[in-house]
Amino acid sequence: MTQDKYAQVRLISKPENMLKTIYTACRTCYSADSPLNIYDCDSAQDEEKMLKLISKVVSSGHYSTIEHIQVSFAISNISRACSHQLVRHRHMSFSQKSQRYVKEKGQFDYLTPDTIENNSELKQKFDDFMGKISEFYLELTDAGIPAEDARAVLPNAASTSMVASLNLRELIHLANLRLCTRAQKEIRILVKRMCEELIKEEPWLKDYLVPKCERWGFCDEDKSCGRMPVKGQ
Amino acid sequence: MTQDKYAQVRLISKPENMLKTIYTACRTCYSADSPLNIYDCDSAQDEEKMLKLISKVVSSGHYSTIEHIQVSFAISNISRACSHQLVRHRHMSFSQKSQRYVKEKGQFDYLTPDTIENNSELKQKFDDFMGKISEFYLELTDAGIPAEDARAVLPNAASTSMVASLNLRELIHLANLRLCTRAQKEIRILVKRMCEELIKEEPWLKDYLVPKCERWGFCDEDKSCGRMPVKGQ
Amino acid sequence: MTQDKYAQVRLISKPENMLKTIYTACRTCYSADSPLNIYDCDSAQDEEKMLKLISKVVSSGHYSTIEHIQVSFAISNISRACSHQLVRHRHMSFSQKSQRYVKEKGQFDYLTPDTIENNSELKQKFDDFMGKISEFYLELTDAGIPAEDARAVLPNAASTSMVASLNLRELIHLANLRLCTRAQKEIRILVKRMCEELIKEEPWLKDYLVPKCERWGFCDEDKSCGRMPVKGQ
Amino acid sequence: MTQDKYAQVRLISKPENMLKTIYTACRTCYSADSPLNIYDCDSAQDEEKMLKLISKVVSSGHYSTIEHIQVSFAISNISRACSHQLVRHRHMSFSQKSQRYVKEKGQFDYLTPDTIENNSELKQKFDDFMGKISEFYLELTDAGIPAEDARAVLPNAASTSMVASLNLRELIHLANLRLCTRAQKEIRILVKRMCEELIKEEPWLKDYLVPKCERWGFCDEDKSCGRMPVKGQ
Repeated sequence: MTQDKYAQVRLISKPENMLKTIYTACRTCYSADSPLNIYDCDSAQDEEKMLKLISKVVSSGHYSTIEHIQVSFAISNISRACSHQLVRHRHMSFSQKSQRYVKEKGQFDYLTPDTIENNSELKQKFDDFMGKISEFYLELTDAGIPAEDARAVLPNAASTSMVASLNLRELIHLANLRLCTRAQKEIRILVKRMCEELIKEEPWLKDYLVPKCERWGFCDEDKSCGRMPVKGQ
Repeated sequence: MTQDKYAQVRLISKPENMLKTIYTACRTCYSADSPLNIYDCDSAQDEEKMLKLISKVVSSGHYSTIEHIQVSFAISNISRACSHQLVRHRHMSFSQKSQRYVKEKGQFDYLTPDTIENNSELKQKFDDFMGKISEFYLELTDAGIPAEDARAVLPNAASTSMVASLNLRELIHLANLRLCTRAQKEIRILVKRMCEELIKEEPWLKDYLVPKCERWGFCDEDKSCGRMPVKGQ
Repeated sequence: MTQDKYAQVRLISKPENMLKTIYTACRTCYSADSPLNIYDCDSAQDEEKMLKLISKVVSSGHYSTIEHIQVSFAISNISRACSHQLVRHRHMSFSQKSQRYVKEKGQFDYLTPDTIENNSELKQKFDDFMGKISEFYLELTDAGIPAEDARAVLPNAASTSMVASLNLRELIHLANLRLCTRAQKEIRILVKRMCEELIKEEPWLKDYLVPKCERWGFCDEDKSCGRMPVKGQ
Repeated sequence: MTQDKYAQVRLISKPENMLKTIYTACRTCYSADSPLNIYDCDSAQDEEKMLKLISKVVSSGHYSTIEHIQVSFAISNISRACSHQLVRHRHMSFSQKSQRYVKEKGQFDYLTPDTIENNSELKQKFDDFMGKISEFYLELTDAGIPAEDARAVLPNAASTSMVASLNLRELIHLANLRLCTRAQKEIRILVKRMCEELIKEEPWLKDYLVPKCERWGFCDEDKSCGRMPVKGQ
């Protein structure tokens, strides 16, 4: 787990028997044999054989077979701006730290955008301003305003944390969209780290956890970042 | 459309032939006749007959037949705190004003929570503070910080607007959860207005767009607000 | 509505104000103006202006803005084999004729696959066999076996009907997959007719309701039908 | 795994660290601590403490925290009639044996409904008839009709197999609906076995994997089976 000012991400749960489960799902569609026998068969003991079949199926875009695998990440140190982008992915499951129920006791944590951090004068003003927001928040809660209302003054920069789960099909979709240079830097780093955490344990996924342009061979945005040509050019 | 400090809500789209579509869906499941004939039949010209069947089906909890109806609302004047609660409903579709792409040009609009509004001293401080945030935001954007980064200082109180669509099954679910007094006041008023806008045109929905306790006859929260007894008491 | 041995499809419901709703959704994301004002503005009275913006947004793959539009089809004369493929699209809503609750009273309707129909000898045997299945079904129900159990003998060829609803994003996805020549002929014709019904009323959708290879410029199946080259060739 | 004429079900995959993951998700919502620290804390080593919190949260209907856990089942020996009911649960993921791609080589397997099995005369006729269907299917494939068309004659009784995955929230919903005596016997037994397989390993789930009437304290169907009174009586 990388330790810097960006997202901290740890893979906290993945299924037992990940490969065997996907392999059994792939073969069940095309086999006269039952999934129970497939699961117990010799090939399902041979990682190389399983990977060969799985790669073939996933490369053909038949992603339903990898929906069977769901993984969970513990995520902290992301801004509320970033978490709001993430929770728009409606096939994911989230348990996020609540600003309604968790009252800040002192200076809240926050993320400083790079464009501000790289300007020392603005950075100083930004830090001072976060301090003022914190003071006003505490003044409100001290005056008896409940946390769920006092949070009205907390900024998008305030940090949050969550447990987030998604299946491999959705993770590939998330990577396709959010590893694109059009995505904002903070979520791009977050999703990159989610992918890296999983690839450490399942290296075969490396080829699929890429920006959409690498999947298609072209860029479908208005302007390309240069990685791939715009469609039709 | 009510005009006050809370959500402004207007129903901007609903299907032609709402009742006929639900009626045809209900009857298709149980009839030897084709949905095309059912749609054209005499009963499908008789609103009272259709409503009688639909009420029976929906009251039995067979909500799949009302998924066929989707409605769209234009919503403005809600806080980002409120919109973040709303977008967690993953069966809904949203097009929300982007803080990445829309740069604030002057004082941003914001919502003041009632607990703060009702305290004139805090209310004054709150307004002053929103002014300071606005000044700092404009200082950042004037210094060349892009809107997507300057928004880091914008508060949860900042107002937003969106187009939101959902089918009737999800609207009933939304009402069940968010009309409960445990929901925060701002989203409770928002959802109430969404329901009212629709009920004006489709009064038969009134009995279903209620908090969950009215549907079940008991409260499943830790403590009841008094409307219904807690389950098992 | 085409009348032949294949699917009968009629568009029975679409939203009022389809274009204005999508236009308002698209502009809301990028505008300082409220969706209510956008909806009422001059441009929203000008179909050509609206279509220009919508085309730009949809061509860039930003499909969330067209989720706001859901359409409903009455479908009959498809085989249960075909309906089982269709109901696997999990973003759709279905109300299907139930074999549990609707008892067949005489010869059930059925669809004959083309490969059998084109062979007069096999076609005769097929028709005779459907007759025998019907006789046995009626023997079972006459003996008091409930319809939900007697249906055990009914074949995949038996026809069914349904009301099916989906939003435009899902319809594009459905067209992308099921207009591909790899899809089975019956569902290909069904989806083609769903698209045609809608294009009659909304011709601008024509460019998007195409097989996936036309969207991508390449074929991602094992073998191409010749329409587009396989990816990487 | 029970061996009889009904569904064979085996739990083939569940997440490592199931309890710790749910516990971390529950506490993340209400804690100032990060999910990474919660995951590593002392309480997350104490099964009893974790179960106490989880039970409290799930009993209050806050099911989003158990979406993080997805489980996979290998299922065989169910009829196509039964699988068609199961695949209508749109939050589940399925990989089902394909009748398009898997050609039957001899007598296909099938399930005989109890009402037919219990009548020896009808049972004999039913078996004979399944034999005749098989003969005709083989005649068609021998004549060069592809499996995807020859399957038109295969009956709802034909058996199928699949890998099916779902999260705990959806499993509770599935149990609520399909353990009800209004569900058909075959799917009731299938879902009961799915629940039993999981309860063997996670006994704490026993209280939640129940028919809906046990959750609500009343029956919302037209007529009650007697287990619970109809709502309002």
